[in-house]
Amino acid sequence: MISVNKKSQVLVKDLIENHNYYRVNVEKGHNQCTIIDAGVNALGNMESGRVISEICLGGLGRVHILNTLQNNEWPLTVHVNTNDPVIACLGSQYAGWSLSSKEENSKFNALGSGPARALALKEPLFDDIKYSDKSDKTCIVMEVDSYPPNDIIEKIANDCKVDAKNLTIIITPTSSIAGNIQVVSRVLEVALHKAHELKFPMSEIIEGFGSSPIPPTSPDFLTAMGRTNDAIIFAGITQLLVKTTDDQAEELCNKMPSSTSKDYGKPFANIFKDYEYDFFKIDANLFSPSKVIISNMATGNTFVSGKIDNDLMKKSFGL
Amino acid sequence: MISVNKKSQVLVKDLIENHNYYRVNVEKGHNQCTIIDAGVNALGNMESGRVISEICLGGLGRVHILNTLQNNEWPLTVHVNTNDPVIACLGSQYAGWSLSSKEENSKFNALGSGPARALALKEPLFDDIKYSDKSDKTCIVMEVDSYPPNDIIEKIANDCKVDAKNLTIIITPTSSIAGNIQVVSRVLEVALHKAHELKFPMSEIIEGFGSSPIPPTSPDFLTAMGRTNDAIIFAGITQLLVKTTDDQAEELCNKMPSSTSKDYGKPFANIFKDYEYDFFKIDANLFSPSKVIISNMATGNTFVSGKIDNDLMKKSFGL
Amino acid sequence: MISVNKKSQVLVKDLIENHNYYRVNVEKGHNQCTIIDAGVNALGNMESGRVISEICLGGLGRVHILNTLQNNEWPLTVHVNTNDPVIACLGSQYAGWSLSSKEENSKFNALGSGPARALALKEPLFDDIKYSDKSDKTCIVMEVDSYPPNDIIEKIANDCKVDAKNLTIIITPTSSIAGNIQVVSRVLEVALHKAHELKFPMSEIIEGFGSSPIPPTSPDFLTAMGRTNDAIIFAGITQLLVKTTDDQAEELCNKMPSSTSKDYGKPFANIFKDYEYDFFKIDANLFSPSKVIISNMATGNTFVSGKIDNDLMKKSFGL
Repeated sequence: MISVNKKSQVLVKDLIENHNYYRVNVEKGHNQCTIIDAGVNALGNMESGRVISEICLGGLGRVHILNTLQNNEWPLTVHVNTNDPVIACLGSQYAGWSLSSKEENSKFNALGSGPARALALKEPLFDDIKYSDKSDKTCIVMEVDSYPPNDIIEKIANDCKVDAKNLTIIITPTSSIAGNIQVVSRVLEVALHKAHELKFPMSEIIEGFGSSPIPPTSPDFLTAMGRTNDAIIFAGITQLLVKTTDDQAEELCNKMPSSTSKDYGKPFANIFKDYEYDFFKIDANLFSPSKVIISNMATGNTFVSGKIDNDLMKKSFGL
Repeated sequence: MISVNKKSQVLVKDLIENHNYYRVNVEKGHNQCTIIDAGVNALGNMESGRVISEICLGGLGRVHILNTLQNNEWPLTVHVNTNDPVIACLGSQYAGWSLSSKEENSKFNALGSGPARALALKEPLFDDIKYSDKSDKTCIVMEVDSYPPNDIIEKIANDCKVDAKNLTIIITPTSSIAGNIQVVSRVLEVALHKAHELKFPMSEIIEGFGSSPIPPTSPDFLTAMGRTNDAIIFAGITQLLVKTTDDQAEELCNKMPSSTSKDYGKPFANIFKDYEYDFFKIDANLFSPSKVIISNMATGNTFVSGKIDNDLMKKSFGL
Repeated sequence: MISVNKKSQVLVKDLIENHNYYRVNVEKGHNQCTIIDAGVNALGNMESGRVISEICLGGLGRVHILNTLQNNEWPLTVHVNTNDPVIACLGSQYAGWSLSSKEENSKFNALGSGPARALALKEPLFDDIKYSDKSDKTCIVMEVDSYPPNDIIEKIANDCKVDAKNLTIIITPTSSIAGNIQVVSRVLEVALHKAHELKFPMSEIIEGFGSSPIPPTSPDFLTAMGRTNDAIIFAGITQLLVKTTDDQAEELCNKMPSSTSKDYGKPFANIFKDYEYDFFKIDANLFSPSKVIISNMATGNTFVSGKIDNDLMKKSFGL
C-alpha cells in the first residue's frame, strides 16, 4: 500500500527548507514538534497554498493554479487530480479528525486534515475505505488562526504513535491566502465525501478530477469561509470515473450536485447566519460541486448533472 | 542530436519505482525484459496516462491534464507541447512500428510507439525526418490488451540492438485510463503525421502545441477507440509554427483539419462499422485535429481553419 | 531575504546542461562569461521561452504554457504566478537596466532584465521595493538580436561585482520563439510596474497572477514587438491581492487597464509608427493588462475593470 505520510514528507521538507519562497514561518513547538505558520503571522502565498494542498492530498496528487476561466467572470482556478481519489482525498485530505483542547480556558477546536489521519485512524471512514498507513514521521493541517495548545500536540503525536519531534503541524487560517487555496482544493474531496455519505461503494470509484475558482480572501472569518464553500458549491466541477452499474452511477450523479440540497440558492454565509450560526443545521448535501460528470468505466456511459451558477458565485465573491 | 531514449529513461524509471502511485504492475518478462501493465490487470490512473504520454514523446515534451473547458460540455483536457515536434512526435510518439507475432496461434498484432522506434528505424519516415538515436536502454509502448509473446520481445530487442533486460514494454489497452490518455495525447502528432503525408517539408516545422478533450473510457474496444479518435477529430486543437512560404503554410492549414476528409461527419465507430471494420477503407485524411492554427515565422502571417464540433463530440462521448 | 540570483541559478544550469532540449546555443564570451543564444543563430522553442521567463522572475515564479482559450480565437496562453510579485517582477523581471555600448561603431543598446539587476541596483526602483541581493553568480536577459560587445559584458560584471566567468547572458531576439514568450510572460510585471508608476505603495501588494495569449512571432521587429505588447494590452488578465483601503484599491483598479490610456485603440505597431518611432511619445499608461481584478485582503472587497478586446487582438495578430 502506498504511504500518504512518506509521499507527503518530501513536500513538507520542501515547505520547511524554502520557507522564504513560500513566505511561511517555521518554528519549534511543544516537545520539539515543527509548526508551520502559513497565515497567522506569516503572509503565505499562492504557492504555499498549492503545496499545502498537495500535502493534504498525502503527496498523492497534483494541484495547479491557472487562469482558466471556468466561468466568465473569475479566471483564477485551482485544478486537482490524484493518483487515487479515495486514498488521497478521504484517506488524507478530508478534514475529519476532530481535535478539541481540554486545557483550561482553551477554546482551541480544529478539524485535522492530511496524512496524520491515516496513522491515527480515529474515524470510522477508514474502515470503509480500507486504508491505514505506517510512518514514523507525519504532518497534519489545521484550518485555524492560532497555534495549537500543548495537549493537542501531545494527543496528535500519541494517536499517530510518532515522536513529537517528527510531527509537523501546518496552520492555515481561513482568511489567509494559503487557507483559501487549501480549502477550494477540496473540490474533488467533497464529491468523494458526498459519495461516501450516499453509501456509494468506495471501491467502485476509480479516478477523479476537480476544479474550482479561487475566491477573493476576506479578513472576516464568516465571509472567507462562505466564499471557499461557495466557490465549490456554485462553480466547482468534478469528474469521476466509476466502475459500477449505470443505475448506481446515474443515481450518484443525480444526487451529487450542490443544487440538490434544500439549502442551495444563497451564499453560504447567509445560510449560516439564517441558521443562527449552528453548523449542524445546514443540510449536509449542500457541500458538493456545482457540476458533476460521472463516467462509468464498466459500460462507457456518462451522466452529467448540475451546472455552474455564475450569478450566485459573483454574489458570494462580492463582484 | 538529442536522444529520445536517454531522455525518456528517467520517466520509465519513475514509472517503475513509483508503480504504486501510478497503479501499474511491473513484471519481468521473457529474457528478463520489463513489462509494465498499465491497464490489463492493473487499474492505471490519469497520472500513469500522463507519464506514459511523456515517454511516448521520448521525454521531449510536457503533458498537462486540466479542466480547461476547450468546449462547453467537457472540461477535462490534455495539453501537449514538445521541445521539437518533429523529433518528439514523429521520431518517437507516432505508432508506426508494425509488430505481428509469428508464433503459432498467436494473434498478437501491435503498432509500436515510443523511443524504441528511433533505434529500430524500421520506417521510411526516419529518412524524411533525418533522425536516429543510439542507446543501450529503450522503451516501447503498445496499445494492446495482452502481454506480448516471446517472438515479439526478441524482435524488438534485436531490432533495437539492446539486451532484452534493458527493454521496457508498456502495455496500455484502449479501454484503460492510461490508454485513453496516451492516445489523445497524440493530438499534436496526428497533425505532424498529416503534414508528413501531405509532403510538407519536415524541416520547416519549428514548433507545435496541441490540446484535446479526454473522452470517457469504454469497456467496448470499438467505442473506446472511436472516442479517442473523435476527441481529436471533433475537438482537438493544434497550433504549428512553420518557416516556409505563405502559400505552403496556407495550403497546409487548409488541408489539415479533420473536416476536410470525405469521411468526416459521424462518430469514428460508425464510420468503421460502415466500412465493415476495414481500417484501410477509412480516409487517412480523417485523422487530424478539428481546428488548426498555423503561423509562419518567415512572414509573421497566421492561417486558421476548421473548428471544434461540440455536437459531434457529444454524440461520440455518449453525452 | 530570498535571493533571486541563487533561486534562478538552478534554472540557468538546466538551460545550459540541456541546451539540446531547449534548442539554445551555449558559448563562452569575453572574459569567459557564458552567452546563451536563444534565438539569434539558435531556434529556441516554447520550453526555452518558458524557462527563460522563469529565470527573468528570479526563480521566484512558475510559468505554464497551455491552450486555455483566454479568448475565443487564440488558445495558446501563458500563465504566470510568483512567490512574491514585487520581488519577482520588479526586483528581477522588469527590463529596467539600460545598457548602451560606448564602443566605437557599436549601436548595442539593451534593457537588461533578470536577477543581475538586483545586484547592480542601478535603478531607483530598488529603493522603493526595498530589495537587494547578494550572489557571486548572476544572469541577465536581454531582448536583442546580436551578441553584446565587450564593454557591456565588463560593465555588467563590474556593476554586479561578479567575475565575468560567473556571469550568464541570455539573448532573446524579439522575433524569436523564446523572445516572444519571455515578453508576454511580463503580463503580471507590467501591472506591478504601472502600480509603481501610480505611486501605489509596493508593500501593500501581496500576491498576483497573470495570463496572456502568446502571439504569433514575426520576422519583422516592429510587428513582433507590437504583437507581444498587444497580447497584454488587448487580452492580458492580471489579478492582484492587495492590503490597503478600498479607496486605494479601487483607484488602482480603475487606473490600471490599458484601455485607460489615451493611446489605446489600435495595434501597438501603428501607434509607434504614428509617433514616428519615438518610443517616449507613447503614453506610458498603455503598457498594462486589458483586464484587471484587484481584491483587497484588508476588507475582502474586489474591484474589476477593463476587458479583453478580441477584435483588436485579432487585428494585431493578423487574424
